[in-house]
Amino acid sequence: MRSGWARRRAVLAGTAVLAAGAIGAAIAIGGPGHGGDRTQDVKAAVKGGTAKNVIFLLGDGMGDSEITSARYYAYGAGGSLPGIDGLPLTGEATTWSLIEKPGDPLHGKPNYVPDSAATGTAWATGHKTSNGRISTTINDEVLPTILERAKHAGFATGNVSTAEITDATPAVLDSHVNDRGCQGPANMATCPQYAKPAGLGSIAEQTVQTGADVVLGGGRGRFEQTVTGGAFAGKTVVDQAKASGYAYVTDAAGLDGVPATVKDKVLGLFNAGNMTTEWTGLPAAHPASGPQVCDTAFRATTAPGEPSLEAMTTKAIAILDAKAKAKKGGKGFFLQVEGASIDKQDHAANPCGQIGETVEFDKAVQVARAYAATHKDTLVVVTADHAHTSQIVEEVDAGTPGVQSILTTVDGAPLYLNYATVAPGPTASQQHTGSEVRIAAQGPQAANVVGVIDETDENAILARALGLKK
Amino acid sequence: MRSGWARRRAVLAGTAVLAAGAIGAAIAIGGPGHGGDRTQDVKAAVKGGTAKNVIFLLGDGMGDSEITSARYYAYGAGGSLPGIDGLPLTGEATTWSLIEKPGDPLHGKPNYVPDSAATGTAWATGHKTSNGRISTTINDEVLPTILERAKHAGFATGNVSTAEITDATPAVLDSHVNDRGCQGPANMATCPQYAKPAGLGSIAEQTVQTGADVVLGGGRGRFEQTVTGGAFAGKTVVDQAKASGYAYVTDAAGLDGVPATVKDKVLGLFNAGNMTTEWTGLPAAHPASGPQVCDTAFRATTAPGEPSLEAMTTKAIAILDAKAKAKKGGKGFFLQVEGASIDKQDHAANPCGQIGETVEFDKAVQVARAYAATHKDTLVVVTADHAHTSQIVEEVDAGTPGVQSILTTVDGAPLYLNYATVAPGPTASQQHTGSEVRIAAQGPQAANVVGVIDETDENAILARALGLKK
Repeated sequence: MRSGWARRRAVLAGTAVLAAGAIGAAIAIGGPGHGGDRTQDVKAAVKGGTAKNVIFLLGDGMGDSEITSARYYAYGAGGSLPGIDGLPLTGEATTWSLIEKPGDPLHGKPNYVPDSAATGTAWATGHKTSNGRISTTINDEVLPTILERAKHAGFATGNVSTAEITDATPAVLDSHVNDRGCQGPANMATCPQYAKPAGLGSIAEQTVQTGADVVLGGGRGRFEQTVTGGAFAGKTVVDQAKASGYAYVTDAAGLDGVPATVKDKVLGLFNAGNMTTEWTGLPAAHPASGPQVCDTAFRATTAPGEPSLEAMTTKAIAILDAKAKAKKGGKGFFLQVEGASIDKQDHAANPCGQIGETVEFDKAVQVARAYAATHKDTLVVVTADHAHTSQIVEEVDAGTPGVQSILTTVDGAPLYLNYATVAPGPTASQQHTGSEVRIAAQGPQAANVVGVIDETDENAILARALGLKK
Repeated sequence: MRSGWARRRAVLAGTAVLAAGAIGAAIAIGGPGHGGDRTQDVKAAVKGGTAKNVIFLLGDGMGDSEITSARYYAYGAGGSLPGIDGLPLTGEATTWSLIEKPGDPLHGKPNYVPDSAATGTAWATGHKTSNGRISTTINDEVLPTILERAKHAGFATGNVSTAEITDATPAVLDSHVNDRGCQGPANMATCPQYAKPAGLGSIAEQTVQTGADVVLGGGRGRFEQTVTGGAFAGKTVVDQAKASGYAYVTDAAGLDGVPATVKDKVLGLFNAGNMTTEWTGLPAAHPASGPQVCDTAFRATTAPGEPSLEAMTTKAIAILDAKAKAKKGGKGFFLQVEGASIDKQDHAANPCGQIGETVEFDKAVQVARAYAATHKDTLVVVTADHAHTSQIVEEVDAGTPGVQSILTTVDGAPLYLNYATVAPGPTASQQHTGSEVRIAAQGPQAANVVGVIDETDENAILARALGLKK
């Protein structure tokens, strides 16, 4: 993988910290702190009131360990992730979900390690639920979501992910179903009560019905399935979307061609499944893979037709900004952006995939913060839904449990990553972990992320920033 | 271990969250947040200026995973650690150290997983160094410490730990040596240049020479060794301490008997080695140990003569407060308090030991915050030096790598902990990990912990709060 080094240098070029991070003993020390007195900066960052716009960015599975390894690999020990690390107000969020076992004494008790469906329901609706549920309670009650409430109040709304747009995190904003697997009309076996015509339909159908102004991600395969009941029976969900006022694009050029002032809503589905990861490299193995540097041009060279998360975020903000301006009432927009495959590559014990998605997610954060720099009435919140397996360890040897990889960072030093929460094997999927996760923010209401909060509190912060009534 | 349940309930009784945490689906949600608007609270917590007193509390190896498991086990998913979680301002700190390999291309580059000696040197002196070094650079230069500088400026000073007081964390405040192992005059094989009479002496000797007003912890064995050179040659380090103005106590009753207004300095050494852990239980194993509840009365029943960290912190603050008042010049005090065996029990994969030490450390934080509540010119900073191995996982089975334990929390739900960074075995020591760690604070200068800082920045915060000149 040595040939990836030059690519990576090129990708990271232009970041001032790169040079500093590469100078060994002369490494610049610290992130935003640098030892100076920031008291007045922190005070100035604390703003109450409401925001015109809210951008909520979620790194799936992006625990502090994942943030740290991405920072060290790409920007060096003395460097900073320009987006995430620059947010002025910071705290931690707890992520637990509920056990759903009707009739069992454990029913309703905490499940200390959640999935993205339960955590998404927590921040999207303010209610705890069980793993696998999409904005429904453990009693199968439908919970209103922040996107639905924002739309109802007159805000433009958007939903962006590198996963299938029907995957758990984006799904919690516009869908309600008992099982995250019910992504398309052909996937309703575990949720028959939600099937059309009697039910709300699959996540893909509900996504169209909720009708966010901008919906960008993967999952085209779900939308190409045939609707089984109701007004659109016999047609695909794509047909349903077009009939419901959506312009439909399927590649980066198509997205580029959509003007910010587009009259229609916009549905962009850029991969049949999850979108291609930005980077790749040797998966962790036993004995350890590497030393390696990552191939940072994997998506750009193998799937150039797929837009990056940075590009999707840029376009989504441009369209939502224009739509908000075109509406009466002066409302702004609500946008969710998910870096989904931090989690998926952590499950797969692929450190380069995981780090590349984290670095790309940080670029989306930079886009959001650049918008907020000129639109100061914008709340930007960045967090993760749950922690994950990867750990930076001191050393690895033949006896270290699990699978490992050795990465050579931009500092030119070895970073040892260990994945050891599941028995190694070709189908092994590393586990989520239950640690609290970082949350950071800027703008009106951002101070409410400081301290220790719960993911359900995030919903209250977003709703209060948007001035939504309970 | 079921018999421990009643004990634990008793120990935790009086914490309001306990009941809330035990009610299953009706669990109270969130920590300090609870969804209300805390903007004004956060703003009010942001204070510049200087502090009369600084209390720095360090949970060794207390990563976010360790904080989370302690909170969930002892206070429940909806509960809070009353000390740590109540601090109003929060951020993350990076922990990396330096590689010391003279002549090797890696010399001076980052070591992404540090030990307590290098991290302690970072916060105590503001300089990065290599693992194992105590307040010296990788070129063996002596670095002035925050305690030495505070003492020189007229502050009363204290140093408290549950480890040997010559262990790395307390050592960085009053000693300078190239190898953390050089704890007593009989332990100087790896640091002959520091041996008396030509050198500064062992950590024990330097501790006496630096002369903090209050020194409390374990490590009596080091001080009972015989000094090999200089004015105290042939005497023990205890003799040296007594001759240097220290009152010497060796048990809880002795410490209780020391009045706050004691004229002498106070050296309390309560165990020949590290102090006894508060709790115990089944170590993690393969297959998993448990389900278990922890024996929360282990120290109280097996080593009642050893004071708790809470008791040592209470007494140290009382003495330092009185000494500061008795001095001319109006200066306050600097105190360091280490919860050392969070780390040591994580190394040993003993979840009950680890959690009990975290809960006890939190009690020390509560003591510091109670003092600060009536002495508002006090900066309280709480952090860890590095992250550690333990992970809260979804489930464990025969294939899960490493060693595991299942704990039954105060919620009555199972908490699965996994330790998998080293090959299991009777002498296995789990590894430190490289994730950024939480830092939280209250009082003057506390706002500087918000965001992402480096451990070296902590030194600048402490020094600025004390008004020390560079």
